[in-house]
Amino acid sequence: MKRNILDYNFPQDLKSMSEEELELLTYSIREFLIEKVSKTGGHLASNLGVVELSIALHKVFNSPDDKIIWDVGHQSYVHKILTGRGEQFDSLRQFKGLSGFPKEKESPHDAFDTGHSSTSISAAAGMACAREIKGENYEVVAVIGDGSLTGGMAYEAMNNIGASKSKVIVILNDNGMSISKNIGGISTHLGNLRTSKGYLNAKRFIKNTIGSRGSVGSAIAGGLAGFKNDVKYSILEKGGVLFEELGFTYFGPVDGHNIGELLNVLNRAKSLDEPVLIHVITRKGKGYKNAENAPGKFHGIGPFNPETGETVKKEEGFSYSEIMGNHLVDMAEENKNIVAITAAMGQATGLGPFEERFPERFYDVGIAEQHAVTFAAGLAKCGIRPVCAIYSSFLQRAYDQIMEDVCMQKLPVVFAIDRAGIVGADGETHHGIYDLSYLLSMPEMTVLTPRNGRSLQNAMDYALTLDGPAAIRYPRGNAPDSAELDENNVMSTTPAVIKNERTAHGRDVDIWACGKMYDCGIKVVEMLKDRGIDAGLVDVEIVKPLDLDAFEKNCRLLVTIEDNDICSGFGMHLAAELKNEEIKILNFGWPDKFIEQGSFEELAGQYGLMPEQITERICEYIEGKA
Amino acid sequence: MKRNILDYNFPQDLKSMSEEELELLTYSIREFLIEKVSKTGGHLASNLGVVELSIALHKVFNSPDDKIIWDVGHQSYVHKILTGRGEQFDSLRQFKGLSGFPKEKESPHDAFDTGHSSTSISAAAGMACAREIKGENYEVVAVIGDGSLTGGMAYEAMNNIGASKSKVIVILNDNGMSISKNIGGISTHLGNLRTSKGYLNAKRFIKNTIGSRGSVGSAIAGGLAGFKNDVKYSILEKGGVLFEELGFTYFGPVDGHNIGELLNVLNRAKSLDEPVLIHVITRKGKGYKNAENAPGKFHGIGPFNPETGETVKKEEGFSYSEIMGNHLVDMAEENKNIVAITAAMGQATGLGPFEERFPERFYDVGIAEQHAVTFAAGLAKCGIRPVCAIYSSFLQRAYDQIMEDVCMQKLPVVFAIDRAGIVGADGETHHGIYDLSYLLSMPEMTVLTPRNGRSLQNAMDYALTLDGPAAIRYPRGNAPDSAELDENNVMSTTPAVIKNERTAHGRDVDIWACGKMYDCGIKVVEMLKDRGIDAGLVDVEIVKPLDLDAFEKNCRLLVTIEDNDICSGFGMHLAAELKNEEIKILNFGWPDKFIEQGSFEELAGQYGLMPEQITERICEYIEGKA
Repeated sequence: MKRNILDYNFPQDLKSMSEEELELLTYSIREFLIEKVSKTGGHLASNLGVVELSIALHKVFNSPDDKIIWDVGHQSYVHKILTGRGEQFDSLRQFKGLSGFPKEKESPHDAFDTGHSSTSISAAAGMACAREIKGENYEVVAVIGDGSLTGGMAYEAMNNIGASKSKVIVILNDNGMSISKNIGGISTHLGNLRTSKGYLNAKRFIKNTIGSRGSVGSAIAGGLAGFKNDVKYSILEKGGVLFEELGFTYFGPVDGHNIGELLNVLNRAKSLDEPVLIHVITRKGKGYKNAENAPGKFHGIGPFNPETGETVKKEEGFSYSEIMGNHLVDMAEENKNIVAITAAMGQATGLGPFEERFPERFYDVGIAEQHAVTFAAGLAKCGIRPVCAIYSSFLQRAYDQIMEDVCMQKLPVVFAIDRAGIVGADGETHHGIYDLSYLLSMPEMTVLTPRNGRSLQNAMDYALTLDGPAAIRYPRGNAPDSAELDENNVMSTTPAVIKNERTAHGRDVDIWACGKMYDCGIKVVEMLKDRGIDAGLVDVEIVKPLDLDAFEKNCRLLVTIEDNDICSGFGMHLAAELKNEEIKILNFGWPDKFIEQGSFEELAGQYGLMPEQITERICEYIEGKA
Repeated sequence: MKRNILDYNFPQDLKSMSEEELELLTYSIREFLIEKVSKTGGHLASNLGVVELSIALHKVFNSPDDKIIWDVGHQSYVHKILTGRGEQFDSLRQFKGLSGFPKEKESPHDAFDTGHSSTSISAAAGMACAREIKGENYEVVAVIGDGSLTGGMAYEAMNNIGASKSKVIVILNDNGMSISKNIGGISTHLGNLRTSKGYLNAKRFIKNTIGSRGSVGSAIAGGLAGFKNDVKYSILEKGGVLFEELGFTYFGPVDGHNIGELLNVLNRAKSLDEPVLIHVITRKGKGYKNAENAPGKFHGIGPFNPETGETVKKEEGFSYSEIMGNHLVDMAEENKNIVAITAAMGQATGLGPFEERFPERFYDVGIAEQHAVTFAAGLAKCGIRPVCAIYSSFLQRAYDQIMEDVCMQKLPVVFAIDRAGIVGADGETHHGIYDLSYLLSMPEMTVLTPRNGRSLQNAMDYALTLDGPAAIRYPRGNAPDSAELDENNVMSTTPAVIKNERTAHGRDVDIWACGKMYDCGIKVVEMLKDRGIDAGLVDVEIVKPLDLDAFEKNCRLLVTIEDNDICSGFGMHLAAELKNEEIKILNFGWPDKFIEQGSFEELAGQYGLMPEQITERICEYIEGKA
């Protein structure tokens, strides 16, 4: 047996490997994952949970002819290793490196690009129908977590497949949690199945073949525990009534860490000609003690010490998420009508302290942004002040609900839009660079773009005074002023009225810098000064309604800078508003294309948004026009 | 007993009425509905189906303290009659008249404004939580059709309520169809419940007390059949396992045309303190033979002859929907990879002939726009050319899927966006005036705005040649050139390249008129000519990518006209693009507010978009600036 997983020719080599060899391979893969992800950071826990499943899938199915679709896709690392991309793992999630999500441009084995939750079954349904139309013959497999099953779209798709009777194999990868603990009726249903008599009986036959291999260290090895079932028993087919009612044949629950059992059930599903749902029980973080003990922490993690599991020390200060969450606690102490809503992202959006302090006013609705927003509308309609904390790109799911259920009724829902702008390593599916574009055309909406922690607090105070909806967008990462903020920072006594304030006057150029980009604006002003150009600066904190009070008519060139798609963003709205003024305008933002993964600085450099690049372009424009 | 339903003091009078009186009331209400809707047009069949249910709800619950939420809301007519709005029915769905949907601004009895499907359970969940936070005491009831249950959002909400155990009463109004015949696994599940032994046994006891009242005529009376159950039997509680698994207590199925039975089950649900789902079986069009026989036709209908059920003769020619559907059949004859997808709107989007001709390439996915789009993406990924025909405002539901699953993978999905622009009587929830706003910021998307039937065909031909996504938006109603089109009109042999073509040169003003508004542009040019102003005209058929080849630099004033929100629409993108040109720009479109119901002409008059108003404003601008 080859020792290094990079020496294999995957997936072909899997075909000739015995179950025992596959079993051994799980150790190599887990070691490899832990070693690599400890350096690059990434989604570790979910990948450790699907090592056996990924191996079994590639053993039974013939990718890329057979299509394997990974819902959300952050659990596709093992699949990437098994489809010849092991060597690229040093570049995982880096600028121009291997993506942390499936990308067809990387490999034909990535049958469908994913990133947002609950899409896999719909895509699988489409592929199955394409197969029938073209008279082709391949298998379609969707792998979806129990968390993703809280998204209604998955149910829409199952409803359709169940009726059409198209052959699609849905693998429900059930680890009992999405990113944090899973909730909802479906979760209870799965819990009942999980503890059903059949499954527990089967487990008793399983021999636990814990092996200590020690190559990454004892902390890892202590958790490197694989199950091996040497008693062949038939797949349990009872239970799963919910899926059966939707028209699926249900297999399960199956031990997702038992390769023999997985091969058995996958082969059986393959032999049928109908929609099948295989309920696989896995453990998030499986085989790495540190991750098993703290699967939430290891869901998406930065670089860490593989021995101890300790993350490389994070920067001093507080993230925007933490500032939002802490300030909301302060506000909720004063106002009993404030509630917080999250769509399966309580910790990540900084709502942990809120949940702890006000459990009865905290709602985690699962990965269900649509419901989250209309649920908030219902609350607001009855006098509650809901704050929905949702990532920018995930809030796209609720476009219609924001428009129809919140704005149209002018309900005072506050959207705390986290991860607005470039998010970095997660790449194009996760960048939050369209929120200004989609929010600015919504009537009744107020859109605020705080530039630091203090102005985020002000924006929250202000938003809660409004008699209608408000969206506050703020970026990933630490607030530049967060070192100045006390964790128990008390709410401002007088809510500020948010204005776009002029902070500098300039003769030659006027720079309107939005939110996070205000700091970039400061640098541009300084650089322009060095080039003999006198620039003014406006701190753009509100983009809808458009506040142009600070506009100076005698300005010859107005420059906007924003961390949003340039198409339909703040700059464009401002340019359209000023279209008949005697003024030239330059807009800076992300171009009208999907922006790849990379740090903010790498991407800004790539697309001309670094302060020196903006300065240069302004100078060129002035010289060209002068 | 009062003869005229306008003489009652609703809902108070219901409280003192006997079951027999309520039974008699159903006749009066049905007569009233048929009489009124035959004049104004509206959603007749769904309202005839909920006469008994609406009466029972207002008998058992105390609106507006208790909250009744009508999913979609087009079945709220009876509720409106029962909450004191009978007198306004002559203005139903007219400009400045009674809305066909719940509107809190009309009455506090409209607990939540609806219009799009599957939101009611989420809103109810929010209201129930608000009740708990505030320590108040009221009931929350969501009334949702089986069609709306195909929307995933309803499931997200049920999943949450089931887990929270909040008291919410969900009434599943199951008529076995949404707008056309319902489909999907859930539908099969409901069908099984419907024909369950318990329900059929109960039905045998029901005495049919058909009464002929003759006041509207025998055709109506022949259908005015109500059930009266004089045998008290207990509510069936078996079945409904799917809902039970989600955490609901299931009651049903219940005969939705039996007031006694409804009162019984509603009172029972009210007495419990847990989530309850009541499965009510109704018949769409109930009590009006013409509607019972053709519930699809009477779903949303224009004025009709109440005796015969015949609609007032429609205009000559073909609607855009029909032209799209017919042309798609022609295209699909040539290209076997073309498939059509609808979200429960097959007939309404003109896909009837396609379904008939190519049943194996036609997919009705239910009210599930999210799934529809990603399903299309899956098809496209495997070499199929899907055409998704969805109304503009409903496509908002799939914003995220269009962006993430279609555009990001540059998949060749064609969106046939019907009802773009002002739709008329359905009002703010249904106007399709935001599609340009949300599509123009999507990378890789081509956006086409045909101005008549012929250019719609060209746009379809062109879209199918592209190697990426395309959206074709076209309005409700007949195409202006449709009289020239033969129903079996053959596909153009050479697909046109879509350009924005200049059709007239002008010295003083240049008018860029988008899609449907081109005809308005022609009139404006003529009117300006009468005022001594020489205007050019460009037929804007493509708005993304922005094609400015026809732009003439020497033009002093450029005018854009579009049937879209002015904020983020075509005109704004054009203005931003030309921001540094020496040219003045005037944009005409719908203002940044929600636009009420009314005919296109009424609304255009209201918001300054009639040709004479546009002409006037151009003249004023020129004079002011000259």
